[in-house]
Amino acid sequence: MTVSYAIGVDYGTNSVRALVVDISTGREVATHVYDYPSGDAGILLDPKDPNLARQSPADYLEGFRVSVREAVKAAAADQDFSPESVVGIGVDTTGSTPIPVDASGTALALLDQFKDNPAAHAWLWKDHTSHAEAEEITRVAKERGEPYLAKCGGVYSSEWYWSKILHCLRTQPEVAKAAASWVELADYIPAHVTGNTDPATLPRGICAAGHKAMYSEEWGGLPSVEFLESLEPGLSRYRYETKAVASDQLAGKLCPDVAEAVGLPAGVAVAVGAFDAHMGAVGAGCGDGSLVKIMGTSTCDCVPAPLSAKLPDIPGLCGVVPESIMPGMYGLEAGQSAVGDIFNWFVRYLSPSEYGNDAQAHVKLTDDAAKLKPGESGLLALDWNNGNRTVLVDPRLTGLLIGQTLHTTAPEVYRALVEATAFGALTIIRRFEEYGVNVNEVINCGGIAEKNAFVMQVYADVCNRPMKVSRSAQTCALGAAIFGSVAGGAHSDVPSAQAAMTGVKDVVYEPIAENAAVYERLYGLYKQLHDAFGGQNRSADLGGVMKELMDIRQSARKG
Amino acid sequence: MTVSYAIGVDYGTNSVRALVVDISTGREVATHVYDYPSGDAGILLDPKDPNLARQSPADYLEGFRVSVREAVKAAAADQDFSPESVVGIGVDTTGSTPIPVDASGTALALLDQFKDNPAAHAWLWKDHTSHAEAEEITRVAKERGEPYLAKCGGVYSSEWYWSKILHCLRTQPEVAKAAASWVELADYIPAHVTGNTDPATLPRGICAAGHKAMYSEEWGGLPSVEFLESLEPGLSRYRYETKAVASDQLAGKLCPDVAEAVGLPAGVAVAVGAFDAHMGAVGAGCGDGSLVKIMGTSTCDCVPAPLSAKLPDIPGLCGVVPESIMPGMYGLEAGQSAVGDIFNWFVRYLSPSEYGNDAQAHVKLTDDAAKLKPGESGLLALDWNNGNRTVLVDPRLTGLLIGQTLHTTAPEVYRALVEATAFGALTIIRRFEEYGVNVNEVINCGGIAEKNAFVMQVYADVCNRPMKVSRSAQTCALGAAIFGSVAGGAHSDVPSAQAAMTGVKDVVYEPIAENAAVYERLYGLYKQLHDAFGGQNRSADLGGVMKELMDIRQSARKG
Repeated sequence: MTVSYAIGVDYGTNSVRALVVDISTGREVATHVYDYPSGDAGILLDPKDPNLARQSPADYLEGFRVSVREAVKAAAADQDFSPESVVGIGVDTTGSTPIPVDASGTALALLDQFKDNPAAHAWLWKDHTSHAEAEEITRVAKERGEPYLAKCGGVYSSEWYWSKILHCLRTQPEVAKAAASWVELADYIPAHVTGNTDPATLPRGICAAGHKAMYSEEWGGLPSVEFLESLEPGLSRYRYETKAVASDQLAGKLCPDVAEAVGLPAGVAVAVGAFDAHMGAVGAGCGDGSLVKIMGTSTCDCVPAPLSAKLPDIPGLCGVVPESIMPGMYGLEAGQSAVGDIFNWFVRYLSPSEYGNDAQAHVKLTDDAAKLKPGESGLLALDWNNGNRTVLVDPRLTGLLIGQTLHTTAPEVYRALVEATAFGALTIIRRFEEYGVNVNEVINCGGIAEKNAFVMQVYADVCNRPMKVSRSAQTCALGAAIFGSVAGGAHSDVPSAQAAMTGVKDVVYEPIAENAAVYERLYGLYKQLHDAFGGQNRSADLGGVMKELMDIRQSARKG
Repeated sequence: MTVSYAIGVDYGTNSVRALVVDISTGREVATHVYDYPSGDAGILLDPKDPNLARQSPADYLEGFRVSVREAVKAAAADQDFSPESVVGIGVDTTGSTPIPVDASGTALALLDQFKDNPAAHAWLWKDHTSHAEAEEITRVAKERGEPYLAKCGGVYSSEWYWSKILHCLRTQPEVAKAAASWVELADYIPAHVTGNTDPATLPRGICAAGHKAMYSEEWGGLPSVEFLESLEPGLSRYRYETKAVASDQLAGKLCPDVAEAVGLPAGVAVAVGAFDAHMGAVGAGCGDGSLVKIMGTSTCDCVPAPLSAKLPDIPGLCGVVPESIMPGMYGLEAGQSAVGDIFNWFVRYLSPSEYGNDAQAHVKLTDDAAKLKPGESGLLALDWNNGNRTVLVDPRLTGLLIGQTLHTTAPEVYRALVEATAFGALTIIRRFEEYGVNVNEVINCGGIAEKNAFVMQVYADVCNRPMKVSRSAQTCALGAAIFGSVAGGAHSDVPSAQAAMTGVKDVVYEPIAENAAVYERLYGLYKQLHDAFGGQNRSADLGGVMKELMDIRQSARKG
């Protein structure tokens, strides 16, 4: 039997991973991780500006060559593997991570003239230097009655494409002037490994364009020249005319020099790129009505829904974009700004001596938290230590803990934090359902889903529905490999590739009725606090409290 | 020069302290502490009922003999001291701590028949077995339109005299039947050491009667027979007719057997007893417009105000009782249910390894918290981990912390908790002032005031007024000695005794204007949360959240 393979290349925040997968079974044959060498764990920081987070395009290019080459080498241990048996490569990345490029498609940071200018580098997703521009884009779009925000929850983010470009145009005009275009990392990699780098024609993925750049067929692609010019004269220069496409499409063929560097034949199919969470959802086996939760430091929640469903605009969602997850379906994206990060914060800063402050503390706290019954602590928390992404779309919200007595213990607080993130997850599910999006199953992936049965059981009980866990521990790279296999023609479409290559674990966390009943009461209280402090309940008049605390904090730190 | 001495005997929760004081200077000559030997640190507990807290009357009697005897012995080192130079003894105690006694005044617990029955012992102030009866007393008094609650904040407490007696009558009828009367510990000790034990005639102090038993001259003493009988037939049996008096009055003369046991001459004057915090206020040097804060695990806030002031009823105050602190003045009492207890809770349960969980943790956390500027953490807390005594009078409230991010540190939380207690203190001061009670100075005493300059500075900044600290570290016992000296005729009245015997430290914590400005903003937010979660702001509709969490907790613990 001939075995074919696809390679998924997954660009994370600190490293890039290449994964070689058997496309008939999904068996993960070999993997290699390349840590970005530049800056602080791959991130270029500015000690004077905590909002700044950039990356080196050189790290990305070298990361492709090293990770794929080493994964291919390691795959040779598989008896059926040969470089010729690789049918395609898919790429997923963080985003929005736009890179300014010159007319040839070369990243400006790679030019001598700009090599030390952070503005000429990749603007990493979590760069927040452009918060003022984001607010301005939201405001101007609303004032002009533009439709552009309807697909991204009604609020444009400082993490997104146009905010960053606008900020660069205003603060680093020489970089902006040198830039012929801005290319998302998800498009930059396929363009460069296929040699198809001309920014006027290089394939742009619908995932980045639709979720982060206000691209929609409904208004003919990117926002209008008039709108962009009204924000800042010159901004419309970066308005590309390319039609953005789904990731089952071919971005091009592996070009000879890259092929040689990675030990593969030239001409291997390379799929159009997309974001990590979206490809992760595919790697987890999503389909119509499957919510995939990528659970890590934060979560990304993805649901595909049939294009025939004619969805309304859904307030508070990060995005509703045709084909951004699966070809032929809407891709709906939501998310929680912090999940694992909240547990890590507690362990790092507030875990008492008996539990310690290292990774083992999570295990011990989980053990003791799991012994408690729902409601037993009397505690309730809001999961907003890093703001709220869905459904409030407000980064200026903070955490809240209520119900402390003189006997409240660390595992009680830890459990309340876990429960708070589960209540946040339920709020997202309810928002989907209120607007007619079916959520028939929930598939979890990522480290927490893999390792923490307690957290998964709490999610099952709080959401009162079964929690499944993806079979793969590398769903993003697996999803990328799936797109590689489809773009390479080895599978006819994404669902048939998924049928062959994905699955869930045997263990499914089923809700326990008596726990669910307690959590239903607690969720009522969570929602009350959520609406009061999130500004949804105007008569409570508490929507400004967290923001005023932030203002006071800012004054204190300046003063 | 002849030197005279008075002795203050201070009954705390776990021990009794005797202090020998030079009445012309306030010099503290000798002291001795006797730890109650019974139960858990002097408290008789019931493993099945966490609300139960009783004490042994035998411990009290033995505690008087040992502590006074040893203090007198130690005072002999003072060259001017002789047993004959002692002019009077004052007694202060915890309360409401009522003791059932037979017709001779003997505590029922001292009788063989009842020695193993907790109901026949002293019902310690923090016994909460009678919470249902307390709610009933509040309800029935309101329904009947009785005036009795106007002097104690509008809500009768489970810690108080009639709640406890009513609970005993219903649950331990044989004890209730054997009881001829119930005597507060503050009255029991002076009665027994003077041999004046007949419950029909023994002197009752206005402090305990007025603050805890709804005694007032306005309605002719204790609540009416009709009211008491409407609560439970038979309850009016314990309605004593004695006129309650202030502590400058003589309770009697030291009787020969006790005198011999303690090494003093028979016939030494013994003053009428009062509660520890009230005498502590006197020992701290309070007068018209001086707020004395006794700061410990909780606080008691005492202010004397002129009887001529014709005060209105003040909602939310624990009590407004003529002469309960100073003869000839109103005694106003307020308090915070937890202050040091909140800091201790944090250190015990949530202080991370680098700070540890012992007493030293307070020092380290204080050091780091003191480095922060007001508002810098972005945190705000409510100081309700043990409910709220003043001004909400609601034990069913709990803690709240808001403003956490992913970078919030332990000293930031610790500081927010300190600030929360200061905001609680300011809320009490404002309530006094709103109702026409002058607060011209604040004198702090107790361990926190003595030892923690950081906490005192936060209080000065939050309250925007100077914080003074009592010179004595044993203000309760010193206050008792002052009353001993007055009752013994060595000082003509309490103010002249205070002038001779009390003072404040040289260090006064002055408010720092820029800190006070930040705290004014933060207090606005505190007040907003206070009113929303305390049920004072009905449109916020959050007044039930903490209580529903408690109900859920209770169901979970039962289930």
